[in-house]
Order: sequence, then C-alpha cells, then structure tokens
Amino acid sequence: MRKIEHIGIAVKDVETSNEVFKKLLGKEHYKVETVESENVSTSFFQIGETKIELLEATAEESAIAKYLTKNREGVHHIAFDVEDIYTEIERLKGEGFQFISEMPKKGADNKLVVFIHPKSANGLLVELCQDAG
Amino acid sequence: MRKIEHIGIAVKDVETSNEVFKKLLGKEHYKVETVESENVSTSFFQIGETKIELLEATAEESAIAKYLTKNREGVHHIAFDVEDIYTEIERLKGEGFQFISEMPKKGADNKLVVFIHPKSANGLLVELCQDAG
Repeated sequence: MRKIEHIGIAVKDVETSNEVFKKLLGKEHYKVETVESENVSTSFFQIGETKIELLEATAEESAIAKYLTKNREGVHHIAFDVEDIYTEIERLKGEGFQFISEMPKKGADNKLVVFIHPKSANGLLVELCQDAG
Repeated sequence: MRKIEHIGIAVKDVETSNEVFKKLLGKEHYKVETVESENVSTSFFQIGETKIELLEATAEESAIAKYLTKNREGVHHIAFDVEDIYTEIERLKGEGFQFISEMPKKGADNKLVVFIHPKSANGLLVELCQDAG
C-alpha cells in the first residue's frame, strides 16, 4: 500500500460531472477511457499524487449501473497503489480480508486490479491496483 | 486545490475500525484526536501524501451520528488541501458551488475547514482545509 491511486466516483453522466469537477478542481480532466469489460466510461482528473476517476455505466449490467439503482452518485471505491498485487492479496487474505475475486484483471489506466469485499473492509469497496507495465 | 488532504470515513466504533485499517494498510494509526466542537472522535492513518480519517460520533447531535442513521459506514467526505481557504471559497462561489457555511472554522488536525454542500458537488461532501499555522 504505497498511496491512494485514485478515488472512483459513480456518476450518472460523465460529461455533466466533468464540468462539475473541472470547476471544483480548477483544472480539466486529462483523459477519458472506455473499459469494455466493465461496461464503464471513465474520466480522470489528477490531484497531487492521486486521481479522481469518474465512472458512468455504459450498460445495465455494469457494476456502476447496479450501484446507482441503490445509491446516490458518490464515492464508489477507493483504490490503493501496490507494488506487487499478488503479494498484497496473500497478505490481506492472511489478515482475513475477503476478495470479490482473487484473480487480478485488467482495469482502466493500464492497471491490474482486484477488489476487496466491502463487508470485510468497514463498508468500503477497496481496489488494489498495480501498473500492468 | 493542491492535493487530497484526507478521506473522512464514518465508523460506528473507531477502535474496531482502527484494527481493520491497520490490517488493510499494514501500519498503525499515527494519532487520535477528539474534536469537541464536532462531537467526533477521530483517528488518522498516513498513506502517501494523503490521510485516512476515521470518524466516530461522541454525541447524538454529531453529524456523523446523523449520517449513520441514514447510511452505512463508509466515505463521509473528501477533503482537499488549499493554500488560501478564503480565496478558494470565493473562486468556488463564483463557479456556483454552495457552502454549508461560508465561514471557515477550526477542525481536527489544526486545520481551518469549510464544507461544500453535496448537492452542488455531484453528491460528494467536499471539505476544503488549510493549515491553521
């Protein structure tokens, strides 16, 4: 766990939210990316060493669409940068954390990612991410 | 807006959550602080340039107690470090953001703090904070 890599925010419409965050942070987003495997359209803002990732669902089966049927727009997950995702998974399993899937997969921003279940992390959806190189 | 100063997480019991975050982050919290004016007991973990602030209510009238009557434990607010809080308040008011109160007050960790209403910030409770010096 080296730093907070990004904060993922579920939004209804990424273009509308880009305008809100542009005004809030006083700067433009620096990239957009569609992650087909996750059915999300994303937009990234840099703030210090961390990023804010806006997430809009592009299909009903998207985790973000499901999230927004039960919750208001807001923080969806917190992602921590790790040096070696496999080592961290083993360490955290040893500490009793439960993973949604223990197999890292390719996420946005050229990362290998894996998620800890909110039930074992104080209600937070925690993502671990490692540069995929 | 220089960096994310901290992520505030509402918890039911700060001692229990200290154990969860100690295991998650692989390190101990570095301080605890009670903020009498806000009726909260807090605990801080450093992660890179950012902090995680756990917040437990110490009285029923605490904003954290009210939050937890309507929501599960989880992210309560995101705090951004600013160089001059008064300048940022003016800038953000000009951009149409609404503040819960426009007068900064003393928060935890020797900061001057002010909050933007979630309605004008995409559902996020946004805190601005400046070192009180």
